[in-house]
Amino acid sequence: MTNAAHDVLSPTPDDRFTFGLWTVGQTGRDPFGEPTRAALSAPYLVRQLAGLGAYGVNLHDNDLVPIDATARQRDHLVRDFQQALNDTGLKVPMATTNLFSDPAFKDGAFTSADARVRAYALQKTMHSMDLGHELGAETYVFWGGREGSEVDAGGKLLDALAWFRDSLNFLAAYSEAQGYGYRFALEPKPNEPRGDIFFPTAGSMLGFIPTLERPDLFGVNPEFAHDTMAGLNFTHAVAQIIDAGKLFHIDLNDQKMGRFDQDLRFGAENIKTAFFLVKLLEDSGYGGPRHFDAHALRTEDEAGVWAFARGCMRTYLLLKEKVRKFNEDPEIQAALAAYRVEDAELAELTGRFSPERARALKERAFDREALGRRGPGLEQLDQLTMELLLGVRG
Amino acid sequence: MTNAAHDVLSPTPDDRFTFGLWTVGQTGRDPFGEPTRAALSAPYLVRQLAGLGAYGVNLHDNDLVPIDATARQRDHLVRDFQQALNDTGLKVPMATTNLFSDPAFKDGAFTSADARVRAYALQKTMHSMDLGHELGAETYVFWGGREGSEVDAGGKLLDALAWFRDSLNFLAAYSEAQGYGYRFALEPKPNEPRGDIFFPTAGSMLGFIPTLERPDLFGVNPEFAHDTMAGLNFTHAVAQIIDAGKLFHIDLNDQKMGRFDQDLRFGAENIKTAFFLVKLLEDSGYGGPRHFDAHALRTEDEAGVWAFARGCMRTYLLLKEKVRKFNEDPEIQAALAAYRVEDAELAELTGRFSPERARALKERAFDREALGRRGPGLEQLDQLTMELLLGVRG
Amino acid sequence: MTNAAHDVLSPTPDDRFTFGLWTVGQTGRDPFGEPTRAALSAPYLVRQLAGLGAYGVNLHDNDLVPIDATARQRDHLVRDFQQALNDTGLKVPMATTNLFSDPAFKDGAFTSADARVRAYALQKTMHSMDLGHELGAETYVFWGGREGSEVDAGGKLLDALAWFRDSLNFLAAYSEAQGYGYRFALEPKPNEPRGDIFFPTAGSMLGFIPTLERPDLFGVNPEFAHDTMAGLNFTHAVAQIIDAGKLFHIDLNDQKMGRFDQDLRFGAENIKTAFFLVKLLEDSGYGGPRHFDAHALRTEDEAGVWAFARGCMRTYLLLKEKVRKFNEDPEIQAALAAYRVEDAELAELTGRFSPERARALKERAFDREALGRRGPGLEQLDQLTMELLLGVRG
Amino acid sequence: MTNAAHDVLSPTPDDRFTFGLWTVGQTGRDPFGEPTRAALSAPYLVRQLAGLGAYGVNLHDNDLVPIDATARQRDHLVRDFQQALNDTGLKVPMATTNLFSDPAFKDGAFTSADARVRAYALQKTMHSMDLGHELGAETYVFWGGREGSEVDAGGKLLDALAWFRDSLNFLAAYSEAQGYGYRFALEPKPNEPRGDIFFPTAGSMLGFIPTLERPDLFGVNPEFAHDTMAGLNFTHAVAQIIDAGKLFHIDLNDQKMGRFDQDLRFGAENIKTAFFLVKLLEDSGYGGPRHFDAHALRTEDEAGVWAFARGCMRTYLLLKEKVRKFNEDPEIQAALAAYRVEDAELAELTGRFSPERARALKERAFDREALGRRGPGLEQLDQLTMELLLGVRG
Repeated sequence: MTNAAHDVLSPTPDDRFTFGLWTVGQTGRDPFGEPTRAALSAPYLVRQLAGLGAYGVNLHDNDLVPIDATARQRDHLVRDFQQALNDTGLKVPMATTNLFSDPAFKDGAFTSADARVRAYALQKTMHSMDLGHELGAETYVFWGGREGSEVDAGGKLLDALAWFRDSLNFLAAYSEAQGYGYRFALEPKPNEPRGDIFFPTAGSMLGFIPTLERPDLFGVNPEFAHDTMAGLNFTHAVAQIIDAGKLFHIDLNDQKMGRFDQDLRFGAENIKTAFFLVKLLEDSGYGGPRHFDAHALRTEDEAGVWAFARGCMRTYLLLKEKVRKFNEDPEIQAALAAYRVEDAELAELTGRFSPERARALKERAFDREALGRRGPGLEQLDQLTMELLLGVRG
Repeated sequence: MTNAAHDVLSPTPDDRFTFGLWTVGQTGRDPFGEPTRAALSAPYLVRQLAGLGAYGVNLHDNDLVPIDATARQRDHLVRDFQQALNDTGLKVPMATTNLFSDPAFKDGAFTSADARVRAYALQKTMHSMDLGHELGAETYVFWGGREGSEVDAGGKLLDALAWFRDSLNFLAAYSEAQGYGYRFALEPKPNEPRGDIFFPTAGSMLGFIPTLERPDLFGVNPEFAHDTMAGLNFTHAVAQIIDAGKLFHIDLNDQKMGRFDQDLRFGAENIKTAFFLVKLLEDSGYGGPRHFDAHALRTEDEAGVWAFARGCMRTYLLLKEKVRKFNEDPEIQAALAAYRVEDAELAELTGRFSPERARALKERAFDREALGRRGPGLEQLDQLTMELLLGVRG
Repeated sequence: MTNAAHDVLSPTPDDRFTFGLWTVGQTGRDPFGEPTRAALSAPYLVRQLAGLGAYGVNLHDNDLVPIDATARQRDHLVRDFQQALNDTGLKVPMATTNLFSDPAFKDGAFTSADARVRAYALQKTMHSMDLGHELGAETYVFWGGREGSEVDAGGKLLDALAWFRDSLNFLAAYSEAQGYGYRFALEPKPNEPRGDIFFPTAGSMLGFIPTLERPDLFGVNPEFAHDTMAGLNFTHAVAQIIDAGKLFHIDLNDQKMGRFDQDLRFGAENIKTAFFLVKLLEDSGYGGPRHFDAHALRTEDEAGVWAFARGCMRTYLLLKEKVRKFNEDPEIQAALAAYRVEDAELAELTGRFSPERARALKERAFDREALGRRGPGLEQLDQLTMELLLGVRG
Repeated sequence: MTNAAHDVLSPTPDDRFTFGLWTVGQTGRDPFGEPTRAALSAPYLVRQLAGLGAYGVNLHDNDLVPIDATARQRDHLVRDFQQALNDTGLKVPMATTNLFSDPAFKDGAFTSADARVRAYALQKTMHSMDLGHELGAETYVFWGGREGSEVDAGGKLLDALAWFRDSLNFLAAYSEAQGYGYRFALEPKPNEPRGDIFFPTAGSMLGFIPTLERPDLFGVNPEFAHDTMAGLNFTHAVAQIIDAGKLFHIDLNDQKMGRFDQDLRFGAENIKTAFFLVKLLEDSGYGGPRHFDAHALRTEDEAGVWAFARGCMRTYLLLKEKVRKFNEDPEIQAALAAYRVEDAELAELTGRFSPERARALKERAFDREALGRRGPGLEQLDQLTMELLLGVRG
C-alpha cells in the first residue's frame, strides 16, 4: 500500500462517520450466551471513537441513562457525556428511543394492544426527544423493534397501523411545539425480535409516510442488514428512497440473506452491494452521516471492537476510492456509454402525454427482433467492475 | 361433509373469483423442462371456468393475441373470445400487458436503457389498454417482470425509477384522454425473472405511488407468492395497503418462502396466513375480484388443472366459513376482548397533540413493571385458532 | 368438540411427550430485551409437566446445575430434582451439555482453535454425561451451537471437522468404558448463534457419522425449526434419517423459513409439514420420545407457558388423529392407489443387476409420450388432504 | 494491469477449466420468456472454448443427441463432436443424463411412482453412460432435477429413497460390468424445478452414499449455487466433502441466497466465499476439473456469452493469485498463528481415549474465565483479508 492509499483510508470528521453507543459498546450477549466483553462507559467510547477519526456518536435514551435512573443520576451521566463530546468535538447527530428492551414493550410500544403501554411509549419518547435535543441531535430515528406480531389472531393489524400513525403525528407536533425541529427517520426491519415486524422494508416506510399529517418531516433510515435479511437489494432500496427525496439517515453494516440479524462490519459480506451503495451515496451527493449500526463479533475482546470500528471506516473509504476509479476508467465508461441508447425523436414522442403524441407513437413501427438481438454488454461490464474491485484495474 | 357445508363450498359468480387465461392455460413448461400439457384455446378456458362457478377471466394482451398476429387474426381471436364471454356471462375485470416474454424486453421494458425499447413498451401497452377496454376491463395491472437488474454496474437505478414514472404518467393520461377510466394496480415482486426486480415488495409500490402525477388513479395489486418469496407476511402487507386505501386488486396463490416463484394453489402451503388473509379481506369489506394467479403443478394433466381451479375456490370458501366461525366463537371472542386494554383517561391524553396533553402525559406515572408482567394470552388464542382451523371447534 | 375428540387430545405418558427444562423454563430474554418471566425451579417444572400428561423431561447440565455451582450445591439440586421425578414418575430420556453459553466457548467448544477450550469442553461433557446417566438418560444429544464461524479466514475448516470427530470418538469410548451405554444423537443447525454452524443440516450429520470410529453408536437428532431455517422440507429430512436407520431422537417445534430461530409451538406455522411429519413418525413406527424443543412466546406470562405446552401436545395428537382418518379415507386411498403404477415384468428387469437384465432393459421399447401425458392426480390428492386437515372430511 | 498479472489471468488447459455444452450453449429461455440467443452447435462451442483456454467440455446425453434422434443422426452428431475434440485437444471429463426435460420425468425419474418411468430412466442412463464412455468421460454425474415433490400426500418418501438407491446400485454394477470404471458424483440441490428435491444439500448426498452397495464408487458433485440457494456456506460444505474423501467433481457458479437458481458467472456475487473456496481447493490439492455450471445472463448476445466464459476463468485465476498472496502475507500469517493455541500436555490428555486420560482430564483445573476473555483477533484478520481481496495489500 502506498502512502497515498494510506491517507485515503484514514478517516476524518469530514467523512461524517458515526457510530451508536450501542454498537461499539455492545457486550456480546446473544440468545445463546452471556456477555463476552465488559460494558464500557459512554465517555470512554466517545474518546475512543474520536481518536479513530469518527464524526459523531448516536444513542438511544437508555444507552446513556438507564431506564430506572434517578433524575440526579441522569444529570450526572449526561454531564459526563457532554464533557466528553466537548473535549473531543464529537457530535450527536441522531437520537432515538429504546422501546424494545423493557418487558413493558414485549408486545409492541406504539402498537401494543394495551393503551397504557402506548401512552407510556409516547411519554418515554418525549423524554428521549428532550435528551436528544439537549445533546444537539437533529435527526430522530424510530425503529419499532417490537412493533409486530407472531400471532395474527390478535386481529389488531389495521388498528396497529392507526396507532402507530397517531403516535408519530403526536410526536412530530411535540417536536415542532418544542422548537426541536427534528427530522424523523423511520427504520424498517422485516423480523427479529418479532416474528413479523410491521413496516418490514424500506418501501413499507416510504408507503406509510404519505399517510402522516406532516409527511415533510418524515423520511427513512434504511439499514443495510435489514432489507438484506429479506433478501432484497439494499442499493435498490436506497435508490428508491433517494428518488422520493426521503434519505434522512442511513445505517451501514452487513448481513447474510435469510437469517438472524448479524450486524456485521460494513462490507464484511456483500462487497459488491457495498460498492454500489457507496457509489450511489457519493454520486448522488448524500450529505448526511454514514452511521455504522453494527458491532464486533461476539468472539472479540475490546481490541477486536476497535479493529471492527476502524475496519468499517476503512472499507467505506476504500470503496469510495474505487468509485473514483470506476468513474475515471475509460473502458468502463465506454461500456456504460454503449449500454445506453438515446433517440431524440422518440424522446419527443414519449414526453409529456398528448393525444397527438400517443397517436403517433401507436403508429410507429419498431423492429422488435432487432431490439431483442442487441447485446447490452453487461457480463463484460460486470467483470470489469469485479476486476476493479479486486485491484487489477486502475 | 354435510349438504350445508357442500353448498358453502360451491363457488358462484357472487364470490367474484377470477382466473387468468395464463393460469389455467399454463402448459407446464419450466426452466428445466418442456410443456407437459397441450395449449387450450381462450374460449375453451372461458367455458370451463364458467362451468366451475368463476366470475371472470383476466388476460395479458398476448394470452389472447400472439405478438405477431395480423390485424385480421386479432379480430378473429377477440370475436371468438367475446362470444365465449357472452355465452357464459364471464367478465374480464382486469387486463394487463405482457412486457416480459419477448426478447426485446430482456433488460426491461419501461426501464430499459434503450430508449427504443421504452417507446415500444409504451406503444404495446396502449394497444393492450385498447383491447382491455374493448373487453370491459376496469382495472389495469402493471407487473414489471423484467424491470430490474442483475448488474448494478449499469448505473441506471435512479433513471429507471424516473423512466418508470414517466411511463405510468403517460399511460394514465392516455387512459383518461380515451375515456377508459382505468384504475391502475401496480404489482410488486422481489426477483425472478430478474436477479432483483425494482419495486420488490408491496411497500415499495405504496411508496412509489405518491411520486406519480395522478396518485388517485394508482393502487397496488399485491400477490401472495411475491411478498412471501421475500419471507414477508402477506397479510401484513395487505393490511398496510388497505390502510392506505390502495387495495385495487389482489392475486391469490401460495408459495414457500425464499425460493423460486411457485404459484401454488391458493392455501396449499401457508394455511394460517391464507386464513388471516381471507379474514382481513372479508372483515374489511374488500369488494374486488379474488383473482387466482396460480397454476396447476407441472405434473398434472388437464384433469389436474380443473382440480387445481376448483381447489383454489373451495379453499377460499372453506376459510371464509372458518372466519365466520372464528367471529362467532365465544371463547375466541373472550380471548380477543381480554387481549385489548382500553383506558378512557389515557385516550384523552394521547389524542390530538396539545402542549397541555403532552405536559400531562409526561408527568403521568406508569407502573412499568406491571405492564411487563401482564400476559396477553396469545399462545392460547393461537392454539384456539389452530383448533378451529383443524375442525375441532365450532 | 365431542367427548371422544377430547379424550384423543388428552396426552398421557404413553404418548412419550417430553420437554426440555430450558423450554418451559425459558424466561423470554432475547437479543433485544430482558426476561419477561421469572425463572422457575426444575422440580416445579417437573411437577407441572407431569400434571399435563408429559412422559419425560430433558436437560443440559447447566439447566439443573449452574456452571459455577459447588459440589454441595450440585448434590442438593440433583437430589431435589430426582425427588420430583420420583414423585411424578417423569423420566429423563435425554441429556446434553451446554457448550454455548459460557464465554469460554465463544469461538467453538470441540472446534475451538484454542486447545485448552477443546479440552475443557471434553471435561465438561464427561461430567455432564455422568449427571445424565445418574438421572437415567439413555440418549445423549450433541448440539454444537458455537461450532461454526463468521470469519473463514481463520482457516480451520478441515481441522475443525477432525477435532469434532476426535471429541466424539473420545466421548463414545468414555460412555462405553463407564458402562453408560448411551446412544448419541447429533443435532444440526444451519446458523445462529454462529454466522455458519458446521454440519448445518440433517444430511450433514448423516454424512459425518460414517467417519466416526463407532458409527453404530451415533444417530441424528433432527429439529423441525433447524432444517426449516434453511428452507428445507423437514419431513424429507426425517425420511432420509429413517431410511439410514439413524432417527435416535427428534426435536419438535416450528419456524418460518429464512429467519432467526423462533422455536415456535409445534404446528404453529407449517401445519401441512407438521401433519406429514406426524404421519411419517407414526406410520414408520418411530418409538422414541416426541421432544418439544420450543418455548412460549416472549409476550407470555406463566399461564401462557402452560398453554404453549398443552398446545404442543394437543396439536400432535390432533394431527395423529388426522393421520388415522387419512389412512382410512376411501377416496384418498383410491387416489393413492391410482398414483402408483407397478409392472411385474419391469420389476424383474430392474431388479438386481445382471448383464442380461441390462441388455434386455436397454432393448425395451417405452412409450415416452404416453408416460409424459399421464396425470398423477396430485392436485386433487393435495386438495383432499387439505380438506381433511381443515375438518370437512372424515 | 501489468504483463505479469495478465499472464497469471490467462487460462490454459493445465488449469483444468471445463464448461458444460448446456452452459455456453444456453439460449436464454426462462420461465417468463423466450430464447434471446440462437442455439450454437456442439462442435462450434468446443472450438470456441478451446480458443479461450479451457481444458474440457461436459455434457448431458441430449445436449449432443436429441431425445428423438435416429441412430444415424446420433452417429453423425457424435462423429462431428469427436472431430472437434480431436482438433482442439479438449477433453470430456464428465458426462451425465438429462432426466428432467422430457415430460415423462415430470414427477421424477428414478423416484417416479410409475415403475415404467423408473425403468425408462435406467435405460436412458445406460445409453448415456455408453455415450460418455465413448467420449472418454471418467466421471459420471447424477443430478436428480425432478427427484422430489410438491405434494407429500403421495406418501412415497421412503420408497423414493429405496428406488433411488436401487437405481444407483444397478448403474454402478453396469459401469463395472462394462468396464467403464466410472466414478459417480451425486449432485444435490434444494429445490427448483421441484418444490423440494430429495437430497437437498451436499450433506444429504454424503449421508446417502454409505447406504449404497459400492460406496467407494460414489462421491459428491457439489454446486456453489445449490447449497447457496439454501443459505448455506458452500466452502463449509466442500470442506466436509473433502474431509470425507468424496470430492469427485465440483460445479462453480454463483447465486444470491434464498431465491431461484441463477447460475451466475463464478465470483459474480459472493466474492469472499469464492475466495475461501478457491483457497480450500488449492490448499487441499484438489486435482479434478474446475467445472463452470453457469450461463451468461439472458440479456446477453453471443459476445456476452464469451465475456461470461472468460470472466469465470479470470476470476478463478485472480482469486488463486490472491490465495498465494494470503499465504505469503506476514501480517496475515502472524494473525493466523496467534489465532491458534496449542498445548502439548492437553494434546496428550485428549488423544485416543483411555480411562486414565479421561480421569486425568476430568480432574484438570481450567481457568474458564481467562479462556472466555481471550480475543482471537478475527475482526482484524477478516479486515486484512478484505483489504487483500480489494488489492490494497500485497
